[in-house]
Amino acid sequence: MNDTILVVGAGPTGLSAAHGIASVGRKVVLVEKMERLGGAPILSGYAKLVPSGEWAKDAIGRMVRRVEEHALISTIKNTKVTKLEGNHGSFTATLSDGQTVQAGAVVLGTGFTHFDSINKPEWGFGTYEDVVTTTQVEQMVAAHKIACPSDGRTPERVAILLCVGSRDRQIGREWCSKICCTVSTNLAMEIKELSPKTDVYIYYMDIRTFGLYEDKFYWKSQEEFRTKFVKARIAEVTIAPDGKRLLVKGEDTLVKRPIVIPFDLVVHAIGMDPNEDNPEIAKVFGVGLESHGFLDRGEHYTSSFATTRPGIYVGGSALGPEDIDTCVSHGLAMAMRVVGDLAALERKAA
Amino acid sequence: MNDTILVVGAGPTGLSAAHGIASVGRKVVLVEKMERLGGAPILSGYAKLVPSGEWAKDAIGRMVRRVEEHALISTIKNTKVTKLEGNHGSFTATLSDGQTVQAGAVVLGTGFTHFDSINKPEWGFGTYEDVVTTTQVEQMVAAHKIACPSDGRTPERVAILLCVGSRDRQIGREWCSKICCTVSTNLAMEIKELSPKTDVYIYYMDIRTFGLYEDKFYWKSQEEFRTKFVKARIAEVTIAPDGKRLLVKGEDTLVKRPIVIPFDLVVHAIGMDPNEDNPEIAKVFGVGLESHGFLDRGEHYTSSFATTRPGIYVGGSALGPEDIDTCVSHGLAMAMRVVGDLAALERKAA
Repeated sequence: MNDTILVVGAGPTGLSAAHGIASVGRKVVLVEKMERLGGAPILSGYAKLVPSGEWAKDAIGRMVRRVEEHALISTIKNTKVTKLEGNHGSFTATLSDGQTVQAGAVVLGTGFTHFDSINKPEWGFGTYEDVVTTTQVEQMVAAHKIACPSDGRTPERVAILLCVGSRDRQIGREWCSKICCTVSTNLAMEIKELSPKTDVYIYYMDIRTFGLYEDKFYWKSQEEFRTKFVKARIAEVTIAPDGKRLLVKGEDTLVKRPIVIPFDLVVHAIGMDPNEDNPEIAKVFGVGLESHGFLDRGEHYTSSFATTRPGIYVGGSALGPEDIDTCVSHGLAMAMRVVGDLAALERKAA
Repeated sequence: MNDTILVVGAGPTGLSAAHGIASVGRKVVLVEKMERLGGAPILSGYAKLVPSGEWAKDAIGRMVRRVEEHALISTIKNTKVTKLEGNHGSFTATLSDGQTVQAGAVVLGTGFTHFDSINKPEWGFGTYEDVVTTTQVEQMVAAHKIACPSDGRTPERVAILLCVGSRDRQIGREWCSKICCTVSTNLAMEIKELSPKTDVYIYYMDIRTFGLYEDKFYWKSQEEFRTKFVKARIAEVTIAPDGKRLLVKGEDTLVKRPIVIPFDLVVHAIGMDPNEDNPEIAKVFGVGLESHGFLDRGEHYTSSFATTRPGIYVGGSALGPEDIDTCVSHGLAMAMRVVGDLAALERKAA
C-alpha cells in the first residue's frame, strides 16, 4: 500500500486538496504542468477575487506558500503525468521528466482553459486592439490603471459583453460559465473605483449573480457604482466612423429595438472551456469525459468526486465551470474522500 | 483533548460531514432537531434531485443509512444543543434532553428554512387552494400524480412563478436562492412526464441555470418538453370569472405589455430563508451572522468553513442558499478541516 497521494494540478482545487491530505500526516506529491503554482488566478494575474474582495496574489499566494512550506508536500513543476498504472492503493505514475511516483490515490485538480475570443471573431477580438478580455482588464486593475491598448487613453465608456464562449450553440459552447456575471459586476465596480468618470455598460442575456452575490455584487454595482445593464443580443463589434471608437451593434431585447452604442473599450467576459488537455488527461488516467468535454464524475451523494476509475478523484473546474470558493471546497472534500477511502483499504489489508 | 466531533444538523451537509469524519476513525455525535435524519430533501419529500435525477429518498436515504449503520457515529434525534462551553479541543455541549457531549470540535450543518409563501399574499398562496409551492409539487411528483388541490382535476395549464421570497427587497429577501431556476425547469419536465397534455409556463426575471445546468435543464426543458418561459414582473394572482381558474396578472418585460393568463395550478418557486433558528444558533454556539441572517464565515482560502469561533465550522445552506451537491462537498470539506485542525492541536499538545 502506498501512503503517498498524487495531486495533479496546483490551482485552488489542487492546492486545497494537497494541504488537506498533508494536514493529517499523509505525504503528497503535487505535480503542476506550468512553472508556477496557483492556477488561473495567479497565472492569469486576476485582480480582487469574488466574493472575498481579497487580491488574488495575496489569497491564492497564501495557499501556494502554505503548500510550498509543508514538510509533507513535494511539488514538481513544469511536469505532466504521462502514464498511470496500477490500482487504488498502489498506483505508479510516470512523469514527463522520466521520474516515477508511487501513490495510493490520485486527485485531479486539472482545471479549465479560458475561452479564446478569437473563436468569436464577429465580436472584434483580434481585429481591434481595444477589444480585450476580462482577464486583460483584471491585469489592468491589478496594475491600477484602466487604459485603451490602442493609445493608452482612459476610456470614457466601457462595454463588458457577457457570455463570450458561453451559452452559444453556434460555437459549441452550450454551457454557462457560472461566475462571469458576478466577476463582471465586480470588475465594473473596480473600473469605476480606478476611473470614476468612466461609464460601464454590461450587455447580458440573464444576470446570474446567484445566492448572496445578488445584492452584494449585482445590486451594489448598479446602485452604488451606476453600472448600466443592457439586455441585448449582440450582432457585431465594428469600428466607428471616427476610426477610433468601437461600435457595439445589437438588439435590445427588452425594448425590441436595434441599438448601436460607441465605446472606447470593449471587454469580452470570456467563459470557461474544458481544459484543452482533457482528452490526454482522460487517456492517461483512464477516466471518462462528460458530453461537453469536462471530466466525468460518479455518484453524487455517497461517493462524491469519484471518477469512473477507483482511487482517482476529480473536483473543481475540471468538472465544469466553477468559482474559486467551490474549487477550494472541492479540494478539501476530495482530500477527505482520499484519506477516508485509503484508511478503509488499509483496514481491509491489515 | 476530546476525540469526538459534534455535528449539528442531519441534512446533506451534516450527513456528509459525519461520514467523512468517521471514515478516518474519529467518533461523531450527530444531533438533529427533527425526528428523522435527511434534512429538507427527506423532511419535505423532494422528488428527483438536481442534477443527478435520482429520487431524494434513494439518494439521501443512502446517506442516512450509511450514517445510521456506522459504528463510530451516534445519532441523537428530536434534540437541540442548548449550550456550548469550552474551547477548540475540549468543548462541552449541553443538549435539550439534558445530556452533555464532550467534543473536540463542532460542525454546523444547520441549513435553511423554506420561504413561507404567506409572506407574499398578493400572489395568492393561502387565499386560493390551487396556488401551491414547489415543495408541494415535488410531493405530487413523488406520488406520481399532478392534481389541482381544489377538485383533484389534472391541470391543463400550470404556471411556475420564480423568485417567490427571493430577489425581493419589498419583503426583505435581497438574495437569490440559487437553485430554484434549475429545480423549476426540472419540475416542469417532471410535470410533463406525468401529464403530457399539461402546458407548463415559467415566469422569471433571469433564468439562472448556471454551469452545466444550462443545456441539461433549461434548454432541455424548453426544447424537449416545450416549457414556456415568460420574462415578467408579476403583479397579482386572482380568481378567474369562472370561479375556478386562476389569473396570473403581470407585465411581460420583453414586450412591455400587460399579460393576464388563466391557469389551473399556480406554483410558487419558494426561496431559501436563513434557518429561522439562526439567532438562537448564533447565541448558543457563539458564532456570527452575516447581513441577511445566514451564518457568517471566516477566511475563504486557507481557513475555509471556519466561523468566527475557533473549533466551530459551518457549511452548506447555513451559509446562504445552496444546492445539494455543494452541501455534500461542504460537509466533506468541513470534515477534512476538523480532522486536520485537531491533528495539529494534538501534535501541539503532545
